[in-house]
Amino acid sequence: MSAEPPVPETSVLAVASHVVSGHVGNKIAVFVLQSMGCDIAALNTVQFSYRQWKGTRVSAQEITDLWDGLKQSYLDRFDMMLSGYVPGAAAVEAVGNIAKELKEKARSKPGSFFWVLDPVMGDNGKLYVADDVVPAYRGLIQHADLILPNQFEAEQLSEVKITDSASLRRAIEVLHTKFNLPHIVITSVSLPLSDSQAASPTRTMSVVGSSRTSAGAARLFKIHFPVFDCYFSGTGDMFAALMVVRMREAVYKAPSGTLRDAPSWLSPDDVDPLSLPLTKAAEKVLASMHEVLSRTCEAMEAEMRRETADGGLLLQTQGLSEEEAQKKLHLVRSRAAELKLVRNLGCLRSPNIEYRAEKM
Amino acid sequence: MSAEPPVPETSVLAVASHVVSGHVGNKIAVFVLQSMGCDIAALNTVQFSYRQWKGTRVSAQEITDLWDGLKQSYLDRFDMMLSGYVPGAAAVEAVGNIAKELKEKARSKPGSFFWVLDPVMGDNGKLYVADDVVPAYRGLIQHADLILPNQFEAEQLSEVKITDSASLRRAIEVLHTKFNLPHIVITSVSLPLSDSQAASPTRTMSVVGSSRTSAGAARLFKIHFPVFDCYFSGTGDMFAALMVVRMREAVYKAPSGTLRDAPSWLSPDDVDPLSLPLTKAAEKVLASMHEVLSRTCEAMEAEMRRETADGGLLLQTQGLSEEEAQKKLHLVRSRAAELKLVRNLGCLRSPNIEYRAEKM
Repeated sequence: MSAEPPVPETSVLAVASHVVSGHVGNKIAVFVLQSMGCDIAALNTVQFSYRQWKGTRVSAQEITDLWDGLKQSYLDRFDMMLSGYVPGAAAVEAVGNIAKELKEKARSKPGSFFWVLDPVMGDNGKLYVADDVVPAYRGLIQHADLILPNQFEAEQLSEVKITDSASLRRAIEVLHTKFNLPHIVITSVSLPLSDSQAASPTRTMSVVGSSRTSAGAARLFKIHFPVFDCYFSGTGDMFAALMVVRMREAVYKAPSGTLRDAPSWLSPDDVDPLSLPLTKAAEKVLASMHEVLSRTCEAMEAEMRRETADGGLLLQTQGLSEEEAQKKLHLVRSRAAELKLVRNLGCLRSPNIEYRAEKM
Repeated sequence: MSAEPPVPETSVLAVASHVVSGHVGNKIAVFVLQSMGCDIAALNTVQFSYRQWKGTRVSAQEITDLWDGLKQSYLDRFDMMLSGYVPGAAAVEAVGNIAKELKEKARSKPGSFFWVLDPVMGDNGKLYVADDVVPAYRGLIQHADLILPNQFEAEQLSEVKITDSASLRRAIEVLHTKFNLPHIVITSVSLPLSDSQAASPTRTMSVVGSSRTSAGAARLFKIHFPVFDCYFSGTGDMFAALMVVRMREAVYKAPSGTLRDAPSWLSPDDVDPLSLPLTKAAEKVLASMHEVLSRTCEAMEAEMRRETADGGLLLQTQGLSEEEAQKKLHLVRSRAAELKLVRNLGCLRSPNIEYRAEKM
């Protein structure tokens, strides 16, 4: 494993949830960013014990207070910001105000601040935030440099139902033009986007992204990847943190050498979709994700074997009601499916790229 | 840098403060523990923006609720626990109850749970917690396996004023016998403990530790190290997190192979002070600390040069009152002195041991 971080010194403000146990939100994002050599300010929007069992939300006012505290201590210099789960519309606006302030401060130095926004709202056709969070994000994304919605969130923001390649393209075009968004990556597109994909026996999904041209046209790429037959938590947060690092890396390694000073790190119009820093970044991110998920799957199977050895788990559920027993089984399975990251740092730093981007 | 973690799979509950910016409390402890391959549950006792500017304390009730949430999700299996800064006596008791519960659960399997307690109360003769935190810790430490007070905190707990080698030894003996503490490391002893130390032109301090024998006798060691002419924050938290890892490593690598099953990992009486796992651990921890602090010093000097170049900092303080200007200078200096860890992971994983333990 290389000891040399992939990015130059990078100061990132990470705003997301904190869980005591488990690997979601800032709990995984902060570790990923730090392991890649970034200096992190971590503003936690909630503290839950695990998923959503017990804990406390941080109010919009507390978010603003924490930000004021940073400013008063002259700790408000950031190269990048990553925002993830924020509970409620007022808190989303409070986080948006921080990003807008940082953007305004960087106005005279294009490229010196870059906001990656993960508009966490829901998945698979269901919102898991309050309804008013959707318009709150619609009012904010015009200020972001890169957004990372899943397919459902992209539909919510663009108001385009994604059912095929054409509507997918349209959704991205709306985000580029109506919201003036420089970079978009849709992290989980579950349409078959090619014949080979439709014919494959392995279930695959795609990441689809685009960096706009100066005229607002999309430069689309897609990357297919196989889906593990397992439910993981925190993959979106890990994806987002890795994108922060790999995007900066790709921009700092771009051949021209001046991209880092371009507004929103937008490549010149003659740069091909497959040569975009966004595309290079997404390839590396997916490679890391795939390695971590495959290690997690292996470890999970081993752990479930241990749990069920000699009827152990069955014994533990004796005396419980059917519902309680099911709940216990579910929780044990969830625990076993936690991302296995801390002992697999090599997957983050130097992954093998197996899945390559294609033009759409 | 080796990719192989120094410890077998290790699940740690880390209870301490969270700061958005900076490297103190859980912000540094969690990263250190994760970087060394431990799986961490991080229970944050406060969220402050930086040091103590703005933010919120977590109540004793919230701490208990978070713990209940973990139990309800079957996430209460831990190999080790590290507790640091806890705001107020009620919260200290809530944290103590968690540790006692974990200890009770592990009773039938000696060595399967180990609590490292950093009794954060004050430094240099001054308490920075409420007065009632001191008796709260005095009531708790009998349940800990290893405590990591600084000299002032050791005095508070033992009620022995440390002025020379004899009183230092007495303080440790009181902690071993009156509180039945298995392992003690006093992290910053500023007495000259040897002639060579008194004569040295470099300012030095010592770490002094002991693991008790079955009869409760101390097995004392000391390690001298040079002091940097600079004020750092978070060194105690980094020391504690590293001790967690290195103690477990030393116990798991102990020649007998059965130490891991001994109550509180206490070595047989015939083990010499310099061969104790505690001693080996402290040597490695100090080596890492020294490397990180020396990198931090270099970076700090470079940063202060940048800040003051062309009168930059002076210009920024123009128009401020004398008091405001001093405050700004202090904050800029504090920021520059933040521990430089994320880009120096090698210092954690494979430090060069320069300062060796001696018998006292």
